[in-house]
Amino acid sequence: MKDNTNTEEKVVLEELDLPSDLKSLSLKQCKALCGDIRKLLISTVSRNGGHLASNLGVVELTMALHRNFSSPDDKIVWDVGHQSYTHKILTGRLGRFDTLRQKGGISGFPKPSESEHDTFISGHSSTSVSVACGIAEAMKIQGKDNFAVAVIGDGAMTGGMFYEAMNNGGKEKNRNLIVILNDNNMSISKSVGALARYLTNLRNTEKYLRTKRTVEKGLGKIPLVGDGVSKGIKYVKDSVKYKLLEQSTMFEDMGFIYLGPVNGHSLEELEEVFHVAKSYHSPVFIHVKTQKGKGYVPAENNPGEYHGISKFDIETGNPEVSASDSYSITFGKELVEMAEKDDRLCAITAAMKYGTGLQFFHNRFPERFYDVGIAEQHAVTFAGGLASMGQIPVFAVYSTFLQRSYDQLIHDVAIGGLHVVLGIDRAGIVGEDGETHQGMFDVPMLTSIPGTVIYSPACYEELRMCMQKAIYANKGLAAVRYPRGSEQADFDTTQLTTEYLLTRGKKTPTLIVTYGRIYNEAYKAQKLLSESGINCDMLKLTKIYPIADSIIDEMKCYKRIVFFEEAFGEGSISEKIGDMLTEAGYKGNYRRVTADGFIKQASVEDCLASIGLTAEKMAEYIRREYGKA
Amino acid sequence: MKDNTNTEEKVVLEELDLPSDLKSLSLKQCKALCGDIRKLLISTVSRNGGHLASNLGVVELTMALHRNFSSPDDKIVWDVGHQSYTHKILTGRLGRFDTLRQKGGISGFPKPSESEHDTFISGHSSTSVSVACGIAEAMKIQGKDNFAVAVIGDGAMTGGMFYEAMNNGGKEKNRNLIVILNDNNMSISKSVGALARYLTNLRNTEKYLRTKRTVEKGLGKIPLVGDGVSKGIKYVKDSVKYKLLEQSTMFEDMGFIYLGPVNGHSLEELEEVFHVAKSYHSPVFIHVKTQKGKGYVPAENNPGEYHGISKFDIETGNPEVSASDSYSITFGKELVEMAEKDDRLCAITAAMKYGTGLQFFHNRFPERFYDVGIAEQHAVTFAGGLASMGQIPVFAVYSTFLQRSYDQLIHDVAIGGLHVVLGIDRAGIVGEDGETHQGMFDVPMLTSIPGTVIYSPACYEELRMCMQKAIYANKGLAAVRYPRGSEQADFDTTQLTTEYLLTRGKKTPTLIVTYGRIYNEAYKAQKLLSESGINCDMLKLTKIYPIADSIIDEMKCYKRIVFFEEAFGEGSISEKIGDMLTEAGYKGNYRRVTADGFIKQASVEDCLASIGLTAEKMAEYIRREYGKA
Repeated sequence: MKDNTNTEEKVVLEELDLPSDLKSLSLKQCKALCGDIRKLLISTVSRNGGHLASNLGVVELTMALHRNFSSPDDKIVWDVGHQSYTHKILTGRLGRFDTLRQKGGISGFPKPSESEHDTFISGHSSTSVSVACGIAEAMKIQGKDNFAVAVIGDGAMTGGMFYEAMNNGGKEKNRNLIVILNDNNMSISKSVGALARYLTNLRNTEKYLRTKRTVEKGLGKIPLVGDGVSKGIKYVKDSVKYKLLEQSTMFEDMGFIYLGPVNGHSLEELEEVFHVAKSYHSPVFIHVKTQKGKGYVPAENNPGEYHGISKFDIETGNPEVSASDSYSITFGKELVEMAEKDDRLCAITAAMKYGTGLQFFHNRFPERFYDVGIAEQHAVTFAGGLASMGQIPVFAVYSTFLQRSYDQLIHDVAIGGLHVVLGIDRAGIVGEDGETHQGMFDVPMLTSIPGTVIYSPACYEELRMCMQKAIYANKGLAAVRYPRGSEQADFDTTQLTTEYLLTRGKKTPTLIVTYGRIYNEAYKAQKLLSESGINCDMLKLTKIYPIADSIIDEMKCYKRIVFFEEAFGEGSISEKIGDMLTEAGYKGNYRRVTADGFIKQASVEDCLASIGLTAEKMAEYIRREYGKA
Repeated sequence: MKDNTNTEEKVVLEELDLPSDLKSLSLKQCKALCGDIRKLLISTVSRNGGHLASNLGVVELTMALHRNFSSPDDKIVWDVGHQSYTHKILTGRLGRFDTLRQKGGISGFPKPSESEHDTFISGHSSTSVSVACGIAEAMKIQGKDNFAVAVIGDGAMTGGMFYEAMNNGGKEKNRNLIVILNDNNMSISKSVGALARYLTNLRNTEKYLRTKRTVEKGLGKIPLVGDGVSKGIKYVKDSVKYKLLEQSTMFEDMGFIYLGPVNGHSLEELEEVFHVAKSYHSPVFIHVKTQKGKGYVPAENNPGEYHGISKFDIETGNPEVSASDSYSITFGKELVEMAEKDDRLCAITAAMKYGTGLQFFHNRFPERFYDVGIAEQHAVTFAGGLASMGQIPVFAVYSTFLQRSYDQLIHDVAIGGLHVVLGIDRAGIVGEDGETHQGMFDVPMLTSIPGTVIYSPACYEELRMCMQKAIYANKGLAAVRYPRGSEQADFDTTQLTTEYLLTRGKKTPTLIVTYGRIYNEAYKAQKLLSESGINCDMLKLTKIYPIADSIIDEMKCYKRIVFFEEAFGEGSISEKIGDMLTEAGYKGNYRRVTADGFIKQASVEDCLASIGLTAEKMAEYIRREYGKA
């Protein structure tokens, strides 16, 4: 392309060599591009769903980063990675941007396998400063004079990893390290915690950077003791020096140079602060203020709703399909019902009030509701504290994020036998968010904790029944796991259970075993098979763990057993049952169909099909394995 | 007992009704008791081993807590719990204190099942503020006017949970919550990180509490603008107010009232600050300075060595048995050897430099060594960052503490296929530290992460061989797990392997399978059985995961198989093999002997015996199960 530095010619994204051409454009041209990018973000997310508000908030920030740093030699680490859409557009994925979050398309999160500009996978929160520390140290060891730049949201800042990493980043005095706080005053739910208030204070500290310099100058001019000014003033002066110049913010307490706050929608301010940041011989922390949803009125007005969104109508901002019911909503409403009758019940979320359906509980019982921020470790141990005093805490959490609490579940709940209840939302396949968000590990994780009880309902009514059981029929750690989305119950819902259900047909040597959402698929598979002359009995588990010996006894009567399971296969229920069958001397044929690795992004239906967990795939499997007999 | 308030009569611990009598004693009497307690601590730990330096540091603090708060209505939460010995002595366990850490004796950590004064289990670090938040909230809900007091060490303060909890504690404005920082300027290894420097600054801020009040008063006296003082001064005054009075410390930034630093060996100062703390209508953070090892010269001089210590001679302070070798030391020395030839190798510890044998690496390659504090989450993701740049990070960590990194191992290492190596120390039984420290979960945890490779050597030389394999023959996440303590290798060490070894004797229907340290026990069991006429073949696994199909093929040839495994049974290797045998159509008899719950404190030998993993118990099991055939 031609040199645009001195022209005001309008440029178009498609004709640029990105990201390198950005550096030769004028600020005016860049601003125009930011407008184009916003249109592209809105139209793409309106068609594909995804994260909108956060991406609209970082258009200028991303542009400024790519103008002032040189990716991929400089490494930009996005935290959480869902704010990387503009980054993707500016680093070679403009042409494929319409495949965002689709099967085979580009990911909604940074993915090194997709581009050398995607430094690190980041679907979970608060990891960026740790990653950037590692990269900056490697740069130091390797003698590279580049920058590792972590971009972290204020929500992600509530996670303990951020603090662990800041403590180390500040210690190492590594000038390759820059941390940018993208402060949009809005974590996933409304900002929570003392940090949010602290940031608000900082946000309102107009031009802190400049102020600090002014004070520094000003102090030099105040005369010392004995010059007509009281001793008190001398003292004050020293204190000011100490406080303002050495320990002015929490981030400086942790060893960083603090710069900011700057307007994250002003390319001018961003360029200035990046220029300054690169000149320090210390790790730098830059506080950038942005507005979530910037440039799209519906998202500006309701950034929470446009955080993660399904397809929507651009004109009105209305979602195409409005889910009036879901497992999450059912869970949230039932919990309110239960709490009406029992004031020991408390509800906890880690920044996912709406996602987990706990808004109903919050509205009805604010004094027993806790949004702890993106702090799953604290959530569990806090629940342990409540339980130790006789309350009944219910922590509603996405399966994938519960992984953060493994040690706390063992150490702070299970060893002490405390009664803590988990509502595990988004268990199993979640679809378009891909590998980082699939809920495939809660089963192996929880079964490895002594004394845990796990329920996996197959429909809303069973979810309600399981909640009752988990809360009132158990001691210790009890979990109810349920999927993302809405109930699909084509089966006979009069035969619900919180234990297990064996439905026998004509005498058959073949048994299908399953649990949870995909029971509906297995039920349909059974019918499909029956239509083609293959009869199977069906064992549906609802209490999936621990596994009763009576279940093994029932299973042993069958010559062939197939277990379909929506979880990672290692440590899964089907694996345990396989072992129990051996130990019980089973002589028949046992097969299990489970996920055998990380599941890539696609629709839930496509993901399930890829594992073999749709009705058609199940029927096909049984026909192939057992059809002959 | 009689009222001692106005006497200076010497009292003895044995005659007091504790903790209630403490409140009626004079400070002088209490100080004398502190001396008695120190003697008891030193003599008991010299006999039983345990944590000495940290306990000597909190004698006065504990005394003052029990004089100024009323346990068990007020709840004291120790973090980490190993500093609770004086608390145990003062709350009814004086008579049994000689059983400390022994089988059936009192625990080295708080244990609610042991006493109503032990609020919460705490063997892992950084949990106390979360626990106290939960308790304080329950008190609020229940309308109780008591206090939840977290006592947290400066080492524990480096864990991210502390920060997550402070963010929430500060938000809730709960006056029932008090956090006490026991700042002994010494985490388990030497203090690390920017926080340590920050605390040092605070420690050196003499009488901050008083200073703050002085400044507050002083400011009132400075005349306002237009009174002969420049505008600059007005500005400075406002800044001072803002900085000193509203945001003076990081802890105040997080919503707490900050009091301190106070001398933690002065009962007078402690009583004063507790009195003040109880009067606020906000959560309070008290900064207490203590000296680790206080009162015992060898421990004062070498607090690190007296952190966790084996039996020792009181006069000299010398340990009774000085282990000149261990798996940890072997690991640490071998890593140095490897790093001599490969500058990509980096070593990481989470505050366990000496415990993991990494002091050798630190001495030789300080620029590639990282002690990140008690921050296992950061450690793993930091390793991921290093790995993404082509370094080879090796994280040496105790099995039980690795539990903190489960999500990071999945999300920041495994999904991206990054090559991170884990040296898992203290895998399996650790003995006297009990439930919270046994390394029983790393196997189920790691096998549930797609793509992980795990080695479990049976002796030092195999450890070295496995390290080579883990580092150079694998990609992705690779782990070597090895036990606490020294090698015991009575077997034929010429037959070492990094895969598996099947030793066949005379044709026999019985196969013993095992791995790791207890291979030595199985080897001895095999001999014992052979002597009584029962011949068994032996399958020793070194690469324990993934499990090769050829192993299953070999196993299928035996009529009877017993798998002895030093791990929790759910999700264990023996469970997986049980399942694989079923799926492979095995028709024989399969048994496995594993831990089936949390393992209580006792010697390693006794713990192993309780599971059935000593040579005698193994032989007995096989005689009982298969002896007849």
